[in-house]
Amino acid sequence: MAEAALDMVVISGEELRKHRTTEDCWIAVHSKVYDVTEFLEEHPGGAAIILKYAGADATQAYDEVHAPGIIHETLAGEHYKGQIDPLDTPKIEEQVKTTTGEQVKVTQITTEKSEIPHLSTLLSVADFEVVAQKKFSTKTFAFYSSAATDLISHRDNLDSYRNLLLRPRVLRNVKNVSIKRRILGYESSAPFFVSPAAMAKLAHPDGELAIARACAEDNIIQIISNNASYPLQDIVAAGKPGQIFFLQLYVNSERQKTEQLLNKAREAGIKAIFVTVDAPIPGKREADERISAENFVSAMSGAVATNDKKGGGLGRVMAQYIDSSLNWEDLAWIKKVSGLPVFLKGVQTAADAKLAVEYGCAGVLLSNHGGRSLDTVQPAIVTLLEIHKECPEIFGQLEIYVDGGIRRGTDILKTLALGATAVGVGRPYLYSLAYGKEGVQHLTEILKDELECTMKLAGITNLDQANPGMVNTTKLEHLIRTGGEKHPWIKWEPRSRL
Amino acid sequence: MAEAALDMVVISGEELRKHRTTEDCWIAVHSKVYDVTEFLEEHPGGAAIILKYAGADATQAYDEVHAPGIIHETLAGEHYKGQIDPLDTPKIEEQVKTTTGEQVKVTQITTEKSEIPHLSTLLSVADFEVVAQKKFSTKTFAFYSSAATDLISHRDNLDSYRNLLLRPRVLRNVKNVSIKRRILGYESSAPFFVSPAAMAKLAHPDGELAIARACAEDNIIQIISNNASYPLQDIVAAGKPGQIFFLQLYVNSERQKTEQLLNKAREAGIKAIFVTVDAPIPGKREADERISAENFVSAMSGAVATNDKKGGGLGRVMAQYIDSSLNWEDLAWIKKVSGLPVFLKGVQTAADAKLAVEYGCAGVLLSNHGGRSLDTVQPAIVTLLEIHKECPEIFGQLEIYVDGGIRRGTDILKTLALGATAVGVGRPYLYSLAYGKEGVQHLTEILKDELECTMKLAGITNLDQANPGMVNTTKLEHLIRTGGEKHPWIKWEPRSRL
Amino acid sequence: MAEAALDMVVISGEELRKHRTTEDCWIAVHSKVYDVTEFLEEHPGGAAIILKYAGADATQAYDEVHAPGIIHETLAGEHYKGQIDPLDTPKIEEQVKTTTGEQVKVTQITTEKSEIPHLSTLLSVADFEVVAQKKFSTKTFAFYSSAATDLISHRDNLDSYRNLLLRPRVLRNVKNVSIKRRILGYESSAPFFVSPAAMAKLAHPDGELAIARACAEDNIIQIISNNASYPLQDIVAAGKPGQIFFLQLYVNSERQKTEQLLNKAREAGIKAIFVTVDAPIPGKREADERISAENFVSAMSGAVATNDKKGGGLGRVMAQYIDSSLNWEDLAWIKKVSGLPVFLKGVQTAADAKLAVEYGCAGVLLSNHGGRSLDTVQPAIVTLLEIHKECPEIFGQLEIYVDGGIRRGTDILKTLALGATAVGVGRPYLYSLAYGKEGVQHLTEILKDELECTMKLAGITNLDQANPGMVNTTKLEHLIRTGGEKHPWIKWEPRSRL
Amino acid sequence: MAEAALDMVVISGEELRKHRTTEDCWIAVHSKVYDVTEFLEEHPGGAAIILKYAGADATQAYDEVHAPGIIHETLAGEHYKGQIDPLDTPKIEEQVKTTTGEQVKVTQITTEKSEIPHLSTLLSVADFEVVAQKKFSTKTFAFYSSAATDLISHRDNLDSYRNLLLRPRVLRNVKNVSIKRRILGYESSAPFFVSPAAMAKLAHPDGELAIARACAEDNIIQIISNNASYPLQDIVAAGKPGQIFFLQLYVNSERQKTEQLLNKAREAGIKAIFVTVDAPIPGKREADERISAENFVSAMSGAVATNDKKGGGLGRVMAQYIDSSLNWEDLAWIKKVSGLPVFLKGVQTAADAKLAVEYGCAGVLLSNHGGRSLDTVQPAIVTLLEIHKECPEIFGQLEIYVDGGIRRGTDILKTLALGATAVGVGRPYLYSLAYGKEGVQHLTEILKDELECTMKLAGITNLDQANPGMVNTTKLEHLIRTGGEKHPWIKWEPRSRL
Repeated sequence: MAEAALDMVVISGEELRKHRTTEDCWIAVHSKVYDVTEFLEEHPGGAAIILKYAGADATQAYDEVHAPGIIHETLAGEHYKGQIDPLDTPKIEEQVKTTTGEQVKVTQITTEKSEIPHLSTLLSVADFEVVAQKKFSTKTFAFYSSAATDLISHRDNLDSYRNLLLRPRVLRNVKNVSIKRRILGYESSAPFFVSPAAMAKLAHPDGELAIARACAEDNIIQIISNNASYPLQDIVAAGKPGQIFFLQLYVNSERQKTEQLLNKAREAGIKAIFVTVDAPIPGKREADERISAENFVSAMSGAVATNDKKGGGLGRVMAQYIDSSLNWEDLAWIKKVSGLPVFLKGVQTAADAKLAVEYGCAGVLLSNHGGRSLDTVQPAIVTLLEIHKECPEIFGQLEIYVDGGIRRGTDILKTLALGATAVGVGRPYLYSLAYGKEGVQHLTEILKDELECTMKLAGITNLDQANPGMVNTTKLEHLIRTGGEKHPWIKWEPRSRL
Repeated sequence: MAEAALDMVVISGEELRKHRTTEDCWIAVHSKVYDVTEFLEEHPGGAAIILKYAGADATQAYDEVHAPGIIHETLAGEHYKGQIDPLDTPKIEEQVKTTTGEQVKVTQITTEKSEIPHLSTLLSVADFEVVAQKKFSTKTFAFYSSAATDLISHRDNLDSYRNLLLRPRVLRNVKNVSIKRRILGYESSAPFFVSPAAMAKLAHPDGELAIARACAEDNIIQIISNNASYPLQDIVAAGKPGQIFFLQLYVNSERQKTEQLLNKAREAGIKAIFVTVDAPIPGKREADERISAENFVSAMSGAVATNDKKGGGLGRVMAQYIDSSLNWEDLAWIKKVSGLPVFLKGVQTAADAKLAVEYGCAGVLLSNHGGRSLDTVQPAIVTLLEIHKECPEIFGQLEIYVDGGIRRGTDILKTLALGATAVGVGRPYLYSLAYGKEGVQHLTEILKDELECTMKLAGITNLDQANPGMVNTTKLEHLIRTGGEKHPWIKWEPRSRL
Repeated sequence: MAEAALDMVVISGEELRKHRTTEDCWIAVHSKVYDVTEFLEEHPGGAAIILKYAGADATQAYDEVHAPGIIHETLAGEHYKGQIDPLDTPKIEEQVKTTTGEQVKVTQITTEKSEIPHLSTLLSVADFEVVAQKKFSTKTFAFYSSAATDLISHRDNLDSYRNLLLRPRVLRNVKNVSIKRRILGYESSAPFFVSPAAMAKLAHPDGELAIARACAEDNIIQIISNNASYPLQDIVAAGKPGQIFFLQLYVNSERQKTEQLLNKAREAGIKAIFVTVDAPIPGKREADERISAENFVSAMSGAVATNDKKGGGLGRVMAQYIDSSLNWEDLAWIKKVSGLPVFLKGVQTAADAKLAVEYGCAGVLLSNHGGRSLDTVQPAIVTLLEIHKECPEIFGQLEIYVDGGIRRGTDILKTLALGATAVGVGRPYLYSLAYGKEGVQHLTEILKDELECTMKLAGITNLDQANPGMVNTTKLEHLIRTGGEKHPWIKWEPRSRL
Repeated sequence: MAEAALDMVVISGEELRKHRTTEDCWIAVHSKVYDVTEFLEEHPGGAAIILKYAGADATQAYDEVHAPGIIHETLAGEHYKGQIDPLDTPKIEEQVKTTTGEQVKVTQITTEKSEIPHLSTLLSVADFEVVAQKKFSTKTFAFYSSAATDLISHRDNLDSYRNLLLRPRVLRNVKNVSIKRRILGYESSAPFFVSPAAMAKLAHPDGELAIARACAEDNIIQIISNNASYPLQDIVAAGKPGQIFFLQLYVNSERQKTEQLLNKAREAGIKAIFVTVDAPIPGKREADERISAENFVSAMSGAVATNDKKGGGLGRVMAQYIDSSLNWEDLAWIKKVSGLPVFLKGVQTAADAKLAVEYGCAGVLLSNHGGRSLDTVQPAIVTLLEIHKECPEIFGQLEIYVDGGIRRGTDILKTLALGATAVGVGRPYLYSLAYGKEGVQHLTEILKDELECTMKLAGITNLDQANPGMVNTTKLEHLIRTGGEKHPWIKWEPRSRL
């Protein structure tokens, strides 16, 4: 089997534990499982130390004496057996027990398969986060959940929806409700999509494949991350024929790599390109930096995470290939190479949304990258309101999506009522991978149920009826900046501008 | 005795504990007490397992092996003895004690009658909630206290009153103060009524009967819940002749059932119908959903609670009969069938309050269902202010009541000063049932005392003097939306409207 | 010695503990010390039970079998020895100790004299509150510190000062600063006075006398509480000749008692009468109500505290003599009888401040009674701002004082800068009595130091320079109500007005 | 060696511990190390008590029986060996251990060198504060971190930056970014400088020298504190030739001392004088006052800290030489004597910034002294906005700097975008001294990295492009006071003004 294929073989803890003898010895290192039987005698450190970890995870002991890549260089090929299930990894636990005065060292094999609640007991998006924090490795949860510096925008994203009040109308026949929505003209069973989020395999061996399969069944659009842990074509192949995918794009400093990716995308039937514009460099996510990263590889971009003097930020290190010289004039090239509609992901001002129209974009995803890029920026919903004040004409000129902080059906309806065509849901889908494809589907179902419930209680039966009159925006209005590039009342001008 | 009558027989824990032998064996299952003496020999699982729970509650053991309804199908009729006092239910407690090295299993009968403070030590509405949380079963408290999703509107309801400031006038003769108020023309000893709240028997065996008896003595109007745990006529009968009752109405998908109820209501002397318009479907109350419900039956509606994949939400499951197609045109039919004044319970915008006038309603109860229906909606007091801005003329055209978050005499006076005729108090009355009728009366007395105290300290002697000049509304004014159906400054229009 | 005189004799714990034998046996009951030697043989319950408490406090044991007043009826006269020091009361403590398998009951005499930090370590007003909470009896601290219902106005009083920002001016010669102020024309060493607060003897045996003595030394004006624990003339006598006192007045339902008090006041040289207008009835202070009160007597008003079904609220019970029919027309009578300038204490609207001018008052004390009267009313500083908006002309027509929440020198300067002549400090002075007269003086010194420091850092050298331009009021401005008796924008009118 | 030189000799704990015998005995008292070998026999209290502390810190035992200065008077000269490293002071620890029933007193020498995390693990300014709190003595941390009274301005300083929102522009080529800035015409590698903060030697033996050396390497301007723990010339000498230093000035009541200092400054090549104008007297910093100070001496000003009845406030006591009569007219003298550009440090109103122009100042440092001077004043950033409203013309007339609360790169960019030329960072640099010079450099690097990251994510490449349009100021606008010396809407005028 090719190595890329082996990367997709998931080996259960039960399977690994079967190979614990000198005749048949497997170990796991950095999440990869190797058959080390033939290597036992060759090991410079002796066979005993390896046998101590037979049938279990040996990463920690390995790291104490070896460089990260050596084992794979040595044993790649037939000895490489596949990926260990990250949620079911046998560990060697040493305990010192004191019996009858004497201290005895007891070695025991344990599994880390954590007890998580049955999927059916999860009622809300928040429930998934609780499970994820418990189940994922500390590093994985830190990478997924972290946001820039003081987490202010991350928190504001969530709060901004709570500060929009709904104005329910009563005594309307709401027996039959439809939550269907056309997104870029494609019919979706709901007005939300899966926002791109990197490295889903950290959460579940099936990673982005599980999301694709769940979206296939539920007719939900998935925006594939440029840093997905599976190759683009594999993710598309995991879905069903005709399934709608969009692709997130980080433009590579080596432009030909981006050309290759865009070609692949077009061939794979991707329907739109979402150029990330809010992260020419990665944000400073301290929770991620504080935990060291080793050997995480993104299948699509080839980015490899490692530690440096700024910490072990997976997000930062994986972003090193991104071209920070990308600018408006590059959009024409992307459109030409891909032949696809181009969206800007991460627009944060009405002024840039207007420019997106001028530069022929199909749409914008108003977003602050889930608070992960620059801290203390305004929430996307405030930018949406800003557009109403500054350039409402663009609502007819491109599609406007919003992401960041969407956690409830009420959040979704408010955003649509204020003019967005659809909203994106990012982190929650990563968290839902704690249960694989079933988790993804359960999350989708919760959001759909909540949205339908919200519509009925608010007095509408289809999303075209969602209108600004349903929303009391008074709590956010004082935040809306007008005046375009200029400050509304400060006249002072700096010496120069870009 | 008819079964409905037996539903009203309350069996004390002391009584139940008397029947603990093979010759005389009673058990309680799902709050019903059965004489199982004759059944002991027939029990497929043997007599021993039943005898273990003789004289006590066997629900848990029963549920492990049986479907919920079987015992009642088998033993209804003469073996059914009545309802166990939920606050005095004997339980079998198994403890493993270790004496002299050996483990011994000790079975002991205990009563759950919890120690609660003497009624006279309760000084405020909040005190009743503390007692209720301690005394009621977890499920009952969850059902009563829960609110929709993130509890934001529930909290805002309470906060909104704290954000209204009183402006006391001094040096007025306030020796003699009257808190009497005409509500729909009927004299009430106070300007508040008991808002409808479902299933009062969970709190006390006397349930709604206790409320009716207390209201009889104190001359307070009770709005009977459509999901009361006692039949309408029994509740009315528990009061005194001429006592004023209103009835809450959920219109049933089977309209003839609603016709029957409205006919009964008119015959029972009900004075007004409060059509619930803010809950065409139930809100998502997660605290309620997280605890499984079994076999709760509403006497009036016949709704039966059970578990499903969304959880065990008593509120949700009991609402399944509600007709979500109900709309403005149905009001004429309700008026015709009932022959009674019709109020809309749950109006949340000035626009709908205006429509209520157009459709000939006698009044509106501004309410967001205690925050239990849709979350992140505006508090009722903000809607009251909105009416002052948008359509003040309707104050002369129908009666306006308010509920949700009323906990203090100051809350009551503020609401009346802003133009409401009366306010409703819901959850607190359920909590007061921890002490049965005496609790209800004590709660009424606290609210009356606080209101009288507030009036004296604010400088008025009767409620007709309550006027907007007494209230500083500056902290809430920024929340008031104007513009009717349209958003005040967003011009963007969706593709269609209902 | 007359009983009133004995009420002023303070017996130390050390003294009481000396009398522990059948030949010489003293006990303390409800803070009074009795010589019960002769009574031992007569006691129906036997001598032993009394001897158990010889030399110590017997209140608890006494209360278990006797009505409160009996002991005093029986032993008043020569057996009554005086008041036990509330901060140094010997108690009998029973401990069950287990030694060598046997349980032994050990009785021990202990003193409650709590360890409190040395006065010189107290740096701020807040420090005094911490000490008071530790040192005073639970009941005393509850009575002093409690406020109405949800404590919202109490908290807002404190917060309102924090929300005023100072605007310091720099580079002014601030070497010599004077904090002197004329208050009602009388020179005071500082622009603050002691606001009246009831029952100071609960804090210290010297009670109001200690305050008077400290004020004599520091040249601070004391407003004597109508519910002082010492007679008016004694308090005045405790001071120095020519010392300035004002008197708080609650008008008694028996008007002749008020006449007597006013006559006494004039004779004692009181300079002004502060008629309390914000408490025709007492506020609902739940912390006070929750702890039972017994036998507290106010020397001046004769009010006696006891328990009833609403609780043990000392504040409420002591207020029973107050005439709630008092109104504007009564002010002429008070002026005539007293022959003194009359201030209104507790004015809470600009409208009433204007009326005070019309009715010939010398001034108003803007106050909400420290948040103890009606909850959710606006802080006094907001009322001061309201006067600037509504009727600034009255600043030239009467003196305006403010109290409630003053805890820092910055609070004082802000209030004066906004036009008040002086501010009152209430609770902190009661707390300072934990150290008797020295505590009062230390508190005064802290406030003076802080005020002087504030003036220097703000750039002024005497209080006449304090001006509104020094204060940034933007954080409070949205709270200022205008429109007089009418609501500024609500047009709806109730059926009638007072 | 001269004593001043010895003050700069740092003796490690290891060194001190070597001298523990009767033949060679050193002890440390009040951070000074003495050779007491010859003194052992002379000691009135006997040699034993001294020997108990041989090789360790004896301060506590010394203080129990001696006046602070005596040891130095006795042993100054050849017996004085230098300063003990405050972070590595050996202590004598007495423990009572119970072994085999007997209590044994065990004396042990320990070092206080606390374990602190490796410098490379510190990612943010906040991380340095955590380390400092752990590593510094309680007194030192209290002195550095404390702020005036209720810490409201201290907190507002930090919050004010969080309440400014950034408005990132996207798709700009941000590959090459420069954070260089001209400050008073001198090129700086970054737009921030080290704000003056007293007594850096408390943090590290190298104190201000370490800062100077780090700034030399990183090309950062240091404003030397008037209360530095090293003499001015030594600090300058620690840097490199041509390095830019400014000097903070507290004008001394003995003006000739100020003249001497200014002469020294000019000779040492200082480039500007920052006259502190917000602290004619010290603020009341209670955390500092609560911990007693002994014998701290400032090398530059000669101020000595000691305890008095107000507490042990290092800040207060050290400020006693400051001339509180300093005023605008004195500025000419300072300019003349120093011959240097004069800045005002601590301007807090637009009005005073305008005056600074009139009086010929080169610039102002908008500051509230890190919240340490007067509490409840407005944050400097609000004053900056006030200048835009009141007198924007002054931006062309002097340089405007800001300090107080700068903790992030985003804080820096926001301030510059609003018109400041540079910002100051104070406390964080003191905290960074936990690691000496390396700490200072690491902190500088973090701030530079964050600023560069912020610029790229906000869409600019050099600081001249920073403009008000990048900042959403809506959350702070309601705080901006206009109206100059007058209050904007209060017309009432006090009796007089300064």
